[in-house]
Amino acid sequence: MTRPLAVGVAGLGTVGAGVLRLLAENAELIAARAGRPIAVTAVSARDRLKDRGVPLSGLRWYVDAAARAEDAGVDVVVETIGGAEGAARRLVEAALAAGKPVVTANKALLALHGRQLGAMAESRGVPLAFEAAVAGGIPAIKALREGLAANRIRRVAGILNGTCNHILTEMRVRGLQFAEALHEAQRLGYAEADPSFDIDGIDAAHKLAILAALAFNRPVDFSALHVEGIRGVSAVDIAMAEALGYRIKLLGIATQGPEGVAARVHPCMVPLASPIARVDGVFNAVVAEGDAVGRVMLEGRGAGAGPTASAVVADLIDIARGRHAPVWGAAASALSAAPAIPMQRHRGAYYLRLMVLDRPGVIADVAAILRDGGISMESMLQRGRGEAAGQAVPVVLTTHECEEAAMQAALARIAQLETVVEQPSLIRIEAL
Amino acid sequence: MTRPLAVGVAGLGTVGAGVLRLLAENAELIAARAGRPIAVTAVSARDRLKDRGVPLSGLRWYVDAAARAEDAGVDVVVETIGGAEGAARRLVEAALAAGKPVVTANKALLALHGRQLGAMAESRGVPLAFEAAVAGGIPAIKALREGLAANRIRRVAGILNGTCNHILTEMRVRGLQFAEALHEAQRLGYAEADPSFDIDGIDAAHKLAILAALAFNRPVDFSALHVEGIRGVSAVDIAMAEALGYRIKLLGIATQGPEGVAARVHPCMVPLASPIARVDGVFNAVVAEGDAVGRVMLEGRGAGAGPTASAVVADLIDIARGRHAPVWGAAASALSAAPAIPMQRHRGAYYLRLMVLDRPGVIADVAAILRDGGISMESMLQRGRGEAAGQAVPVVLTTHECEEAAMQAALARIAQLETVVEQPSLIRIEAL
Repeated sequence: MTRPLAVGVAGLGTVGAGVLRLLAENAELIAARAGRPIAVTAVSARDRLKDRGVPLSGLRWYVDAAARAEDAGVDVVVETIGGAEGAARRLVEAALAAGKPVVTANKALLALHGRQLGAMAESRGVPLAFEAAVAGGIPAIKALREGLAANRIRRVAGILNGTCNHILTEMRVRGLQFAEALHEAQRLGYAEADPSFDIDGIDAAHKLAILAALAFNRPVDFSALHVEGIRGVSAVDIAMAEALGYRIKLLGIATQGPEGVAARVHPCMVPLASPIARVDGVFNAVVAEGDAVGRVMLEGRGAGAGPTASAVVADLIDIARGRHAPVWGAAASALSAAPAIPMQRHRGAYYLRLMVLDRPGVIADVAAILRDGGISMESMLQRGRGEAAGQAVPVVLTTHECEEAAMQAALARIAQLETVVEQPSLIRIEAL
Repeated sequence: MTRPLAVGVAGLGTVGAGVLRLLAENAELIAARAGRPIAVTAVSARDRLKDRGVPLSGLRWYVDAAARAEDAGVDVVVETIGGAEGAARRLVEAALAAGKPVVTANKALLALHGRQLGAMAESRGVPLAFEAAVAGGIPAIKALREGLAANRIRRVAGILNGTCNHILTEMRVRGLQFAEALHEAQRLGYAEADPSFDIDGIDAAHKLAILAALAFNRPVDFSALHVEGIRGVSAVDIAMAEALGYRIKLLGIATQGPEGVAARVHPCMVPLASPIARVDGVFNAVVAEGDAVGRVMLEGRGAGAGPTASAVVADLIDIARGRHAPVWGAAASALSAAPAIPMQRHRGAYYLRLMVLDRPGVIADVAAILRDGGISMESMLQRGRGEAAGQAVPVVLTTHECEEAAMQAALARIAQLETVVEQPSLIRIEAL
């Protein structure tokens, strides 16, 4: 057996400590699969004294992670610091500049700087691996980049944020309002004290940007994404979705057609019969549709120490074996320049929920606005009557396929109707 | 761009012709992902004149596939002939002996001779790739061998035969008997004229043997598998399963514990809430449970020209990129010698259906036999009464966990009761 692959781990939070633990616990099995032992030789973190539940004796310690990139006793740098800027970015750039392979779980870094980091890695012929950045332990990156590499991918989509999926699941199963479900998720540690990164869809969008780049061999382009979160999803919408045969999921969806690439993150109504509709709680799922393979779905835990460490160590085993793939699936010179299609040109079916005063003529006004916009209604449902005069009741509409721009224009007009008393809720319907 | 990877394709049936078509249709994209073009330079098949819907002009033609292994103008041999012996085996052995990488979709060959072929490939340092051998286009081999390589796998299981899953789905959805559903599957081309390879579980068992070898890094051991097919599953069982909250699936299941490895293929009752219960029709699914990652499920099309070609070409792209993994996940010297656990020592819960004469005392007799065998009943259900004297009615029992040997002994005694008029039906209940 050849000499061990020496690994430096930067960041000893949940993920970093999980990597150390997994490498220790499954050392023998990992060595057999990697063809050589994988040994951590150096670590860095801000607080040296904190107990992380893993033994750190005998390891070189760096306070400045980037300094570690120069350490000749480190073959591979594992970055689990997080964040698109600061220490994480400095470390990854320094390691690549020093010609050292990098393994990272950092989706924000890749989504925002992946183009330039990919070019750096390519110019030095060094692996930059990030299986852990998307969908935790699910080998989605490897599936897209290698397993489905023979396919022209039409669409890649997924439940990419476990916090949102947990909240939406709890709202449905227990009939909670969004604020209640969020509060409980925070209490259980599934949501951060400042939850906006998750619930506003940003985390899912980082991951989708990475998946879209790989699926379509296109430089990662976070700025072109349309992003909405789940704050606007109410318990009424969830109940209405069930009644209509749908389930509400926060999805990231990227499609490629002759006109270009569209990528968007927003709440969706997916048919109950769709496999992704059943993926509940903190589970993630990634669906890829290829011209040869058809639809493939991968499902598993998208976060947590174990699943994330599983992905990081899989990347280390690839590096130990000398398995190497271009960062975005093809050499920079072979990447596609397909344009991004703006959200305004999205075409799809829509669910609208209006809170209206229960008066004659309201539906007629709404129907006229939709007709003027060239939007054809598929169904309309009014549940309950206002008990007191002036009380608002929900009216739910679904439309046939139309263009986003037309729908947004109609929605703005509907919102201005005197009888419509709240901002209307819009959820896109997706066949997946 | 470097010179093309020259491929010889042996066998031009559905899969072989599909590989040629996919390499032609997605040539540019495949070249970008592979880092070089992948070009077919030679083919072989019995009938040179047959129209296969793909152009064959300009390709060298071999009648004897094995002769092609010597062709200096072929870098990689693709074997899509099929069958564990004969031309397919000769070709793969000749190619490996000549130091040429092999890509095959041949599960029978790998299940029966994979140990020796793996040793040949390893001794010559040559890839032997077989993503297409299991679960068609789903990248299950890559997921187990690379994506989840950091995990100690406790269990790998799956719906591995689309023909059986299609038949079971049709039986449930349309209330058909097994013979009717089989006949229709044959008419639609989903089942062969001689269907025994599929419906007796042999095809699924070949695939499970391969998955188990990879999951547990153990030489492939087909002979140790317990194999039952779906001929004994009746429409009554399917209806009863629904009533009890289960769905019947033909599963391959391999588990590893401290005592060794158990691998079995048989009809199972899986809880309706289990993700695998929803995988219907010709779709396949593979579930892997790892100590770090938890449960991961992969789902997609398990057969057909497109999905199988997708997997074959993915292997070719790996070879073009120089990505290489040991045939059974680790070097032969590092493979596990864990013993095989015989089926008699399986522990699990059971569903039993008896056709009994509707007389007082029948249930008491059955219950006494189970009690004598140390088997505890969980539920009992008798649906309907015999309309005429002497008419048999179904009685359904479920048990708590017990040992297979005890259950088989009890079942033999139950079958001999005078009031039990048919061979009892036994289906194992699996939490998955």
